[in-house]
Amino acid sequence: MTETDRTDSYSTSQKRSDALWEKIRTDPSGLRMLTGDRPTGALHIGHYFGSLRNRVRLQDAGVESWVIVADYQVITDREILGDIQGSVRELLTDYLAAGIDPERSTIFTHSAVPALNQLMLPFLSLVTQPELERNPTVKAELQAAGKTAMGGLMLTYPVHQAADILFCHGNLVPVGKDQLPHIEQTRVIARRFNERYAGGEAYFPEPDALLSEAPTILGLDGSAKMSKSLGNTVMLRMSPEETLKKIKKAKTDSERLITYDPENRPEVANLLMLSSLCSDRTPEEIAEEIGDKGAGTLKIMTAELINEHLAPLRARRAELEKDPGYLFSVLRAGNERANAVADETLAHVREVMGMVY
Amino acid sequence: MTETDRTDSYSTSQKRSDALWEKIRTDPSGLRMLTGDRPTGALHIGHYFGSLRNRVRLQDAGVESWVIVADYQVITDREILGDIQGSVRELLTDYLAAGIDPERSTIFTHSAVPALNQLMLPFLSLVTQPELERNPTVKAELQAAGKTAMGGLMLTYPVHQAADILFCHGNLVPVGKDQLPHIEQTRVIARRFNERYAGGEAYFPEPDALLSEAPTILGLDGSAKMSKSLGNTVMLRMSPEETLKKIKKAKTDSERLITYDPENRPEVANLLMLSSLCSDRTPEEIAEEIGDKGAGTLKIMTAELINEHLAPLRARRAELEKDPGYLFSVLRAGNERANAVADETLAHVREVMGMVY
Repeated sequence: MTETDRTDSYSTSQKRSDALWEKIRTDPSGLRMLTGDRPTGALHIGHYFGSLRNRVRLQDAGVESWVIVADYQVITDREILGDIQGSVRELLTDYLAAGIDPERSTIFTHSAVPALNQLMLPFLSLVTQPELERNPTVKAELQAAGKTAMGGLMLTYPVHQAADILFCHGNLVPVGKDQLPHIEQTRVIARRFNERYAGGEAYFPEPDALLSEAPTILGLDGSAKMSKSLGNTVMLRMSPEETLKKIKKAKTDSERLITYDPENRPEVANLLMLSSLCSDRTPEEIAEEIGDKGAGTLKIMTAELINEHLAPLRARRAELEKDPGYLFSVLRAGNERANAVADETLAHVREVMGMVY
Repeated sequence: MTETDRTDSYSTSQKRSDALWEKIRTDPSGLRMLTGDRPTGALHIGHYFGSLRNRVRLQDAGVESWVIVADYQVITDREILGDIQGSVRELLTDYLAAGIDPERSTIFTHSAVPALNQLMLPFLSLVTQPELERNPTVKAELQAAGKTAMGGLMLTYPVHQAADILFCHGNLVPVGKDQLPHIEQTRVIARRFNERYAGGEAYFPEPDALLSEAPTILGLDGSAKMSKSLGNTVMLRMSPEETLKKIKKAKTDSERLITYDPENRPEVANLLMLSSLCSDRTPEEIAEEIGDKGAGTLKIMTAELINEHLAPLRARRAELEKDPGYLFSVLRAGNERANAVADETLAHVREVMGMVY
């Protein structure tokens, strides 16, 4: 094992993440965040509380922000792209409605930035097949997709993600624990590139994972994840009435006394957590207020709190929906900025590799 | 096995190749050739008789020609790029000296055409890891490089090659038998792209391999391949004196009667074949002329025929060497043409995939 091949443990990642949070709070200058989503349609409250709200906070704290709409990632585990334009439009609407500010955050699509994608080539030369294969996230995603044969795009996805992060010299990537191996792969690629091709110059940063402080949110049916396709969530774009209807169908238990006990009463705790996220109270305080009025009362309160919290977002959303031309003009401006930066990075990469003719 | 997954047998490839040769002789319109080299320096007579001369003939016969300088391919099996600019310059010099005409053939480098490289992304979604792994050429190249762990760029190289061929809608690729699996992979990618993303429209052609009619040439030391690093070849750029010296050192046998017997006297037959390739006579005729004057006479005759044959090429080479600025201007013009075509192809690919925002 050479220096290049060392792997960081989870505790090391956690420590670096803690230091990063501290830096964000005190002096975010020099921090450049890369974040984004696979465009599969409109977002739900799981996305919102899990990542979107946090991105807006980081942007507002002064972290330079790049938000990638990873359209090529849609075909890593499915054959059909579907209405990709519609999915991108929905995503853009939710982004802007949630407070991502195109003046301060660059929103761009994968497929529109050729120089970014070209970075795949030199980066692929820096990893081996066994390294690609042992990426646990890739393995898990393959299983989740229910396929037996790994697709070429899925297998090389961590390398593509390295290109996403490094093309803009991103040094901060907000992720969940399960995404740490991807970030580690990006760090290894940056390190090897610098050593092998840049003569030791620290041209690419080794990005740090910013581990999420957001609580885990279950699906309304009690399953481990909220998902539009499972219908166990509230979409940001829903009306207050639809929201209430959805929350009323949420799984709970028959115990009338409401308590915050995530271990033994996960579904009730989940609604309390959602209520807490939408207010300035703890889940325990909310439970105490409801007392023995049962799950029906909890549901109505949760729906009201969600509706209240999302009201400004939904109002902006309704406005934005009327003007898809504006939404796509935001994207085009972002793509232009991303292309300018990617072209510059690729030019430098070609230069340090001697590929200047 | 679906229709998409069928694999063509060698005899099918041979038949298609034969038909292609016939078309080239009678009506080459609509044929578009993609060919090229890994830039590892100046070329030798093995390259010349094995492929370069043939390319010039196809160009002169009216086949539209695209010649790729595959600079990223240099790092598929080695860590060091070396003096890549120098290698590209040498290659360009040999190309133009051999008769590749920049007015009729587009010479370009891999690294300068981002839209071509972006095609890797959708194409990777069309192949599986097992397909990549069972490519025999990739396996063999890995072994030849003496490595144990397959590099990511080597593993995905057939997909990258598909992008090289398809970005310009190449439908003719001159190859040796060992390259057939690569061409087959490109055909599969074109077919799947058309079915899956282009709604059945035959947007990408399924390129045909044009199997070489050139004889196999051994190294001057009798080994299976001529190679600059083995020092068992004559470089195109050598002087007549250096050529004579090299040929004089060629391995032969002690039998004074010269006969053309590739089976039992491979080294002598190899010199006779080289002599034949440089003249309008068969190896047998040349052997008969030398009779029992032995290998020494054969060597002098071979060197003289090579020097005579290469004299015009070497004269052009000497002129070209004086003007590297011109050489690189040719490459820049080629890159510009390649970019224009690649941009157009990528725009269409994004359109049929719905990635237009």
